[in-house]
Formats: sequence, structure tokens, C-alpha cells
Amino acid sequence: RSGKMAKSTQLIDNEVFRAYATYTAIVLLKMMLMSLITAYYRMTRKAFVNPEDTASFGKGDSAKKYLRTDPDVERVRRGHLNDLENIVPFVGIGLLYALSGPELSTALLHFRIFTGARILHTFAYLIPLPQPGRGLSWAVGYAVTFSMAYKVLKTVFLL
Amino acid sequence: RSGKMAKSTQLIDNEVFRAYATYTAIVLLKMMLMSLITAYYRMTRKAFVNPEDTASFGKGDSAKKYLRTDPDVERVRRGHLNDLENIVPFVGIGLLYALSGPELSTALLHFRIFTGARILHTFAYLIPLPQPGRGLSWAVGYAVTFSMAYKVLKTVFLL
Amino acid sequence: RSGKMAKSTQLIDNEVFRAYATYTAIVLLKMMLMSLITAYYRMTRKAFVNPEDTASFGKGDSAKKYLRTDPDVERVRRGHLNDLENIVPFVGIGLLYALSGPELSTALLHFRIFTGARILHTFAYLIPLPQPGRGLSWAVGYAVTFSMAYKVLKTVFLL
Repeated sequence: RSGKMAKSTQLIDNEVFRAYATYTAIVLLKMMLMSLITAYYRMTRKAFVNPEDTASFGKGDSAKKYLRTDPDVERVRRGHLNDLENIVPFVGIGLLYALSGPELSTALLHFRIFTGARILHTFAYLIPLPQPGRGLSWAVGYAVTFSMAYKVLKTVFLL
Repeated sequence: RSGKMAKSTQLIDNEVFRAYATYTAIVLLKMMLMSLITAYYRMTRKAFVNPEDTASFGKGDSAKKYLRTDPDVERVRRGHLNDLENIVPFVGIGLLYALSGPELSTALLHFRIFTGARILHTFAYLIPLPQPGRGLSWAVGYAVTFSMAYKVLKTVFLL
Repeated sequence: RSGKMAKSTQLIDNEVFRAYATYTAIVLLKMMLMSLITAYYRMTRKAFVNPEDTASFGKGDSAKKYLRTDPDVERVRRGHLNDLENIVPFVGIGLLYALSGPELSTALLHFRIFTGARILHTFAYLIPLPQPGRGLSWAVGYAVTFSMAYKVLKTVFLL
């Protein structure tokens, strides 16, 4: 048992991997928060998409009027989709990057900037801030992921 | 050669990791199934979005009438997007959780409840079941992922 | 320090894992490219969705007319979502597959065919090519991921 556990925990003992785990958990929790914000707006704005979700408002036309789109709901959903489009590459490339043996300080810099940029992006999208606020925060996260991918490909290139 | 293989297979020899691999494969295959269901509904309902997909129905207006949305197709697509929003965090956080050294029984409990909840969520969405069926199955999967993220952050916290 | 680093880099020393890292980085970068293409079409077609994105075109109706959908923009967005739906399972199942001890030649075959199929899929979607070009390239990538999932479940099955 202990031999098997020792093997299984060695990755988690590595400092760069622990940094990756910390920031990946934070950024995925941030993405999950978008579901709650969408649900909050759907309920406060009374804007639903599935007929079964409006059944508690009665039957027929009295319920049907809540099957509609709402600008605030759609805005959160766009932010959520943008998270998926950008956080999925970070999680995948970040794992490979963490295993490619970077310096801890360099790795922390990448993870911290990405996480900060995505949190800023969410605020910029939901408030909303005037452009180029959202555009810049998106571009910073994108550049960090690109930089990690470059390091990965330089290290492991095997076509 | 054999030394290298021994190294590469040690993670897969860990029981918690094997449990993670099993349920992650199942839940990702379930998500992939949504593509087939969407294709099935698009073809049986004759509801397409790309003009090139309707070319076999002839040219001009006879084909153009199949470029339309269909409630069943849209329902599957919403279920698919909800899978992406919830299964991506499970796969990412679940990997970190599996490497954070949980008890096998606790890990299996997390993985099994999540997988069951997402399968129920799909049935609740596609049948559809009256609320709160879909809402509850979503919330259970969400809570499991949150619980794993808490364990990960408690284990690896490195800001 | 060096003992810890040795542990952390052993996964990246494994040839199958290096192949996985190479093709995962490539395919995730390809997916990220979709964001740039969307941005390019939004700006050249002047088709935006957020009011704050059209502020540079002036105020009122002169800017509001650019809040519209454009067929080219929507086409790239569908391609991007299809990437998410298919590349997420590849990245997740591919990682488990790479750790399940496949032959290097078999693994390279899987990774190369998937990557080629997804690049073809993007061209088929954006040009667009007549069907079944896009459908076939999608199906090939889907079958490769399914084949990897089968190998994973055969190796690790632990319910």
C-alpha cells in the first residue's frame, strides 16, 4: 500500500505541479461560477428557454411569456462560452507545460497572469467595461497560453 | 525499454487513478454521444444550419426550407453545451483530485455520483422530465466537482 | 532539488507521452486559432454582438446597425464549438490512453489521424467544402477518440 501511495503522490509533491493544480482549480471554479450567475439572471429576469422550467408560473400563455431571451442572460452565457474556449486550452497546455520542467518562478508568472486576466475578463464582460478592457484581458490570457504551448513544443517535439 | 515502460505505467497502476480513468472515459463518451443524437435529430427532423448540408435535397427553395431550427435539435444542443460546461471542470479537477491522494472509497463515491448525475441529467433534458429533475441532477454533479476542488486546494495550495 | 526534478520529468521522458503532448498542443493551438478568425470576420464584416464593441463607430443608430449576425462569423463560431465538442474528449481520453501503455507506433497513428482529421474539418467548414467532406473528417476524429477510449477502458476498468 504505502509503496503504491508513494508513487501516486510524487507528482503532487512537485512544486510546479502544485502551482498548476492551484491555479487550474481556481480558474475552473471561476468558470463554474458562470453557471450560477446564468441561473441567477434567468430567475430574476424571468427568462427561460425550456418550457418545463416555466411550469411553476402556471400553464399556457401565462407561462409561455417567460420563454424568452434576456440581454443580461445572453451576456453571461457569452462570457461562459468564452471561458470554455480559453480555459480548456489553458488546462490542457498548462498540464503539459507543468510537466515540461519549467522554473517554478516562470511557471507561477504564467499561471498568475492567466488567472488574473480571466478574472478581469469576467468583470469586463459582466459590468460591462468599455473596450478595449475585455479585449485586452482576453489577449493577455491568450498570449500566456501561447507562451506555454511554445515551451511545451520546444521540449517534447515528437511528430 | 522496459525501464521506461515501468515508469510510464506506474500512474495507471494506482487504483484511484484507474478509477478516475474509468469514469472520465465513460462521462466523455456520454458527452460524445450528444453529437450522434444531434445528427440523428437533424436528419429525422430535416433541420440543418449549413447550406452545404441540404444540397442532397435539391437546389434553391426546395433545399432552403430545411435550413431551420427545430426544438428537438436545439434541446440536444443545449444538453451538449451543458455537458461541456460541467464535464470539463470534472475532468480537470478530477485529475488533480486523483493525484492528491484521496482514499479509494471516497474517490469512487465522487466519481460514481458525478457520472450517475450527468447520465440522469441527460435523460432529464431529453425526455424531458418535469423540474426539478434536471436542476437537481445538475446540482449534484456541480457539488461533487466542488467537493473535489476543495480537497485539491486543501492539498496543493501554492499561490 | 534534483531528485524532485527527476521525478517530475519522468513522464515527459516517455515517448508516448511526448507524442501526446506534441499533438495535444497542436490541436489546442488550432482550436485557439478559431478565436482569431472569429475576431477577423467580426471586424471585416462589422458584425458584433456586444454594444460596447461598436462604441468606436459612434453613438446611437450609426453604431447599432453593427450589432448583427453575419453568416461568415456564425460559420466560424460553429466550427469553434465543434472543436470544443471533439477536442475536449481527445485531450481527456488521449491523456489516459497515453498513460495506458500503448505501442508508440499505434499511439502516433491515433494522434496523427485525429490531428489531420480536425485540420481537414476546419478547412471543410470554413471554405466550405461540399458534403460529405466535413462529415467524414468529423467521423474520422470521432472514431479515433472512440478507439482510444476502448483501449483505456480495457486497460483500467475499475467500476
